[in-house]
Amino acid sequence: MSEIGVAVLGVGLMGADHVARIASRISGARVAVVNDQVTEKAERLAATITGCRAIADPLDAIADRDVDAVVLATPGPTHEKQLLACLEHRKPVLCEKPLTTDVETSLEVVRREAELGVRLIQVGFMRRFDDEYRALKALIDGGELGNPLVLHCVHRNPVVPGHFDSAMTVRDSLVHEVDVTRFLFDEEIVSIQIVKPTPNSLAREGLFDPQIAILRTASGRHVDVELFVTTGVAYEVRTELVAEKGSVIIGLDVGLVRKSAPGTWGGTITPSFKERFGQAYDTEIQRWVDAVRSGGTTGIYTDGPTAWDGYAATAVCEAGVQALQSGQPVAVSMVDRVSIPGA
Amino acid sequence: MSEIGVAVLGVGLMGADHVARIASRISGARVAVVNDQVTEKAERLAATITGCRAIADPLDAIADRDVDAVVLATPGPTHEKQLLACLEHRKPVLCEKPLTTDVETSLEVVRREAELGVRLIQVGFMRRFDDEYRALKALIDGGELGNPLVLHCVHRNPVVPGHFDSAMTVRDSLVHEVDVTRFLFDEEIVSIQIVKPTPNSLAREGLFDPQIAILRTASGRHVDVELFVTTGVAYEVRTELVAEKGSVIIGLDVGLVRKSAPGTWGGTITPSFKERFGQAYDTEIQRWVDAVRSGGTTGIYTDGPTAWDGYAATAVCEAGVQALQSGQPVAVSMVDRVSIPGA
Amino acid sequence: MSEIGVAVLGVGLMGADHVARIASRISGARVAVVNDQVTEKAERLAATITGCRAIADPLDAIADRDVDAVVLATPGPTHEKQLLACLEHRKPVLCEKPLTTDVETSLEVVRREAELGVRLIQVGFMRRFDDEYRALKALIDGGELGNPLVLHCVHRNPVVPGHFDSAMTVRDSLVHEVDVTRFLFDEEIVSIQIVKPTPNSLAREGLFDPQIAILRTASGRHVDVELFVTTGVAYEVRTELVAEKGSVIIGLDVGLVRKSAPGTWGGTITPSFKERFGQAYDTEIQRWVDAVRSGGTTGIYTDGPTAWDGYAATAVCEAGVQALQSGQPVAVSMVDRVSIPGA
Amino acid sequence: MSEIGVAVLGVGLMGADHVARIASRISGARVAVVNDQVTEKAERLAATITGCRAIADPLDAIADRDVDAVVLATPGPTHEKQLLACLEHRKPVLCEKPLTTDVETSLEVVRREAELGVRLIQVGFMRRFDDEYRALKALIDGGELGNPLVLHCVHRNPVVPGHFDSAMTVRDSLVHEVDVTRFLFDEEIVSIQIVKPTPNSLAREGLFDPQIAILRTASGRHVDVELFVTTGVAYEVRTELVAEKGSVIIGLDVGLVRKSAPGTWGGTITPSFKERFGQAYDTEIQRWVDAVRSGGTTGIYTDGPTAWDGYAATAVCEAGVQALQSGQPVAVSMVDRVSIPGA
Repeated sequence: MSEIGVAVLGVGLMGADHVARIASRISGARVAVVNDQVTEKAERLAATITGCRAIADPLDAIADRDVDAVVLATPGPTHEKQLLACLEHRKPVLCEKPLTTDVETSLEVVRREAELGVRLIQVGFMRRFDDEYRALKALIDGGELGNPLVLHCVHRNPVVPGHFDSAMTVRDSLVHEVDVTRFLFDEEIVSIQIVKPTPNSLAREGLFDPQIAILRTASGRHVDVELFVTTGVAYEVRTELVAEKGSVIIGLDVGLVRKSAPGTWGGTITPSFKERFGQAYDTEIQRWVDAVRSGGTTGIYTDGPTAWDGYAATAVCEAGVQALQSGQPVAVSMVDRVSIPGA
Repeated sequence: MSEIGVAVLGVGLMGADHVARIASRISGARVAVVNDQVTEKAERLAATITGCRAIADPLDAIADRDVDAVVLATPGPTHEKQLLACLEHRKPVLCEKPLTTDVETSLEVVRREAELGVRLIQVGFMRRFDDEYRALKALIDGGELGNPLVLHCVHRNPVVPGHFDSAMTVRDSLVHEVDVTRFLFDEEIVSIQIVKPTPNSLAREGLFDPQIAILRTASGRHVDVELFVTTGVAYEVRTELVAEKGSVIIGLDVGLVRKSAPGTWGGTITPSFKERFGQAYDTEIQRWVDAVRSGGTTGIYTDGPTAWDGYAATAVCEAGVQALQSGQPVAVSMVDRVSIPGA
Repeated sequence: MSEIGVAVLGVGLMGADHVARIASRISGARVAVVNDQVTEKAERLAATITGCRAIADPLDAIADRDVDAVVLATPGPTHEKQLLACLEHRKPVLCEKPLTTDVETSLEVVRREAELGVRLIQVGFMRRFDDEYRALKALIDGGELGNPLVLHCVHRNPVVPGHFDSAMTVRDSLVHEVDVTRFLFDEEIVSIQIVKPTPNSLAREGLFDPQIAILRTASGRHVDVELFVTTGVAYEVRTELVAEKGSVIIGLDVGLVRKSAPGTWGGTITPSFKERFGQAYDTEIQRWVDAVRSGGTTGIYTDGPTAWDGYAATAVCEAGVQALQSGQPVAVSMVDRVSIPGA
Repeated sequence: MSEIGVAVLGVGLMGADHVARIASRISGARVAVVNDQVTEKAERLAATITGCRAIADPLDAIADRDVDAVVLATPGPTHEKQLLACLEHRKPVLCEKPLTTDVETSLEVVRREAELGVRLIQVGFMRRFDDEYRALKALIDGGELGNPLVLHCVHRNPVVPGHFDSAMTVRDSLVHEVDVTRFLFDEEIVSIQIVKPTPNSLAREGLFDPQIAILRTASGRHVDVELFVTTGVAYEVRTELVAEKGSVIIGLDVGLVRKSAPGTWGGTITPSFKERFGQAYDTEIQRWVDAVRSGGTTGIYTDGPTAWDGYAATAVCEAGVQALQSGQPVAVSMVDRVSIPGA
């Protein structure tokens, strides 16, 4: 299949972010349809994207012939119906968590997909795609750390909306650590306990915050999670794995840090320019492509260092090669700046 | 302009990387043409990319009607002719450094572009697009650091090819710090000195390594650069800016670290999930799109957490909400695993 | 009182360390008496210290007229009797933990001291004197962090002796975090739970390791402690305080790290040479004093940089002052090395 | 020799610090005599220290029969005469840098000591006793890093006194890096260059600040030093050694950090409680000894955790052992607090 048409259902904070992502950074897909409970919001958004329509009914959007795949960013209570519609139309769907809001309907969705015999549903547990979590998973799977025993997690938000209640801490925040546990340990969680310490006096009255969740997995591993959603500081997501042959922390703002025998701590230096500057190359090329596409009206087809910058660098390096021989300071010789449009 | 056709000239290490990037991660562009001195290499590569042709002559490739823009990853000595051809055809070109291999031809290219009155040439100084360098530049431009005074740079490679000589340290390695200096300070470099200390006994005989470059800018700022290309360790690129009101280091493997009055050191915590997990979302969506595009043959249209993962998370969270009320451990109840294709 | 005479009871690992400390690094005290269950061990040690005697009976040692104060590093079961003897003789005593091995005898000791109306007993919870714990306590008491809510502790040993059992994890390891909690929070602990996860397969059969202790304080604060005594890595003691206005971690091998609004992480740079080089000055002077005291036999009364080092530094700085004026490299002029004894 | 009597000459900032050090933290020495150009200052200080006298003339202080050794913290221009007096009286002397203020007099002092054939003079280059510099030196001497090639140093002060001039940057700040270079490399420095970049506009008019010193050693090694004494931030002293088989940085506020093949960065975890809590034990015992010595008047002979703290810890651990067996939360049972003096 060449470029696919995607319908994004629900264009609030998360959905709008996905629309922008697909429209400007993702190769091989375009936003064909947007939908939202607030029809005007979808229409306004559609108008900003070439070839994109707003469709008022989410089930119509799923069924639309121009739609090859669906992103669900709608409220959780609507997921069941929308997921079943995707299955019915055999359209692949990326569903933001939760799958559905209760166990029975979740199980129903799982069974319907199993009956179809195809795998159409992906749940939006995005941490599985985060470079640090992937590196941690790779370390576990590589076996060097020995058997994993304990996971310490921290999940902190600076602030939450006014309607956020204690159960949402479990359903909306803890849910990520639930998936991280299952992803890293490849096994199910069998029991859960929630400790409610002295609450933060700066939080809304009645909100139990922080909470401490204590999980146990089928094989007996221990996971503890500090959930604190009114810290006033920043977004902090940290995971420490304690294994038989060392421990690893991610989320300390300093990359993945490992502790190993015989008593060392530290991380890995980027091995080559590809790892170190991969993001820079991607951004450079994407922005250059964007500049080229819009350059016709401006006569400026670049978004970065100009020919003059190239000339100046050559002039300095030429002096540098002389300086390499002499060991003395060498003056750099350059002509007066040549004027180029937009420079 | 909708999706643009790009010709990539030179498909060695760097060029092939750009081909893969444009083909799989960049929105709004496709690889229309590839070219290489080794014709077969270009042909083999073209065969793997839908809608891509190999063209044997670089000037023909530039002139091709299907080509809207050009990426130059050819050897430096061929750049002048190819750049002039791009200007002649008014095709935007992203030219890997160096612009050309000497000052005279570089200046000629600059002048031709200026005469045309359009800005078609971008030089591949990719560090200007690196998140850390951009954050550093933003800190300088924001004025909080006061006037920048000194730059300490480190440029270390674990190993270089056998033909790498002392002048290449200047032309191929130092050139990046030359551009970083000009980018961060917005002014020209007026003199350069190279110190040659005791050479690394593990380096090739005759190679001056390490070298210390000492630059002075027009306004009198000082830049020193350690260039050490046979460290045996890893790829280390570090820049420390010392300004009147604090200093900032990037490239220490721990993010941007700032030192400010009254005596603190540290960095910034990612403010929200967008910064923390932006890369994860991009990867999630790109891989999901790729899976959907290739799913027809497999019946598996996802590349991540399945509906079962969604069900399991819901089951744990439902138990968690009970545990929130009771304070006691609550067993998680789940059905036996439902089989889904590919799971 | 001028220099006090100390009796050290028990000269195993801990006691011998205290003997060496008092003999060589502590001002105002001398080791007057040593005692051990193994009489010869005490006698051998006494013979190495000027003015020190071995006394076979611990109660005689306590009562000795030359003893002004007592350090108890004997096995826990002997503490009660020895502490009561110290109280009877009104001798100040520093007692390594535990105070006694059960609650009843501990309480008896507390009551006897209270009846005497003097405060003679100090328990060896040395973390209260650690610079990082003190800095953390000062941050709490200063009020900037707001109300402390949660403490996450890690207590890891690389290895433990063969007789170490699961209860010792609680009595000998957790006891430190018990005191840290009481020290930092200034309140009592009201309940404790111990989670036993999958044990480390590399630990001795039958040892529950790791263990997770979950404490609750009188006001409702939560403390969790990972106790893992067979990590094979190193000695790791970490404490993270989570408070209403930020969090602080010590024990990450990088100094005290604080996270504060509006989203920054980091630490404090040593404000002056006193903090940065205080340890260096103490060591310099102590070693110089030691060298002077033993210099009579060698003719070498120093333990550091010589007059020649002073001359060389002056020669370089004199050339430096010339170089400051000229901006050019200045050769340093020095005579041939002058020979000094021991140099 | 038992406890030695020390004369401290010059009791300004540095000298007074040494007086306090010797009086309260150093074993085996006492401050017998103090001296200062401002006689009253010395007298006031002497009055606070048991057994200490002020002597108005520095040469009398050196000659005094009660003085076994001398600490010189007087202004540099007086050093020559005082050092020669120490040699004449054969008294060991610890001389704060500089040895003397010019090369000729320094050399004269070196020669006189050599003629005597004893080694009486130590220069106060205290960094040689700093734990981090010693660890770095040990790494070099251990040979694991291969041949050292380059040293990058940073020496930053937040502020300097009003009389501080550009030459003092060389004589008073750079002098430490001069000695560090000679200490780490075990060879002499043969040339020096000083670069004067754009000065800090926040510094005093006429002060060249920052300065960049470039040193070359006899074997050809390169050292660069950023000297910046008006940063407004804090006291920052950093040294990075670049060697053939890796690099090491100290002074980044995070302990010694090493980069090694195959691409790792990091440090060493403290191997045992002795390294981790050595400072805590020293402080605990010193403060306990001080409390015991002054306890007679207060009835409080301790400076730390009380018997009650010991009781409370035992009570919690006893509950912990029960909790270890049950896995359930166990309430901690304690009597009401028993009152002890000063608690």
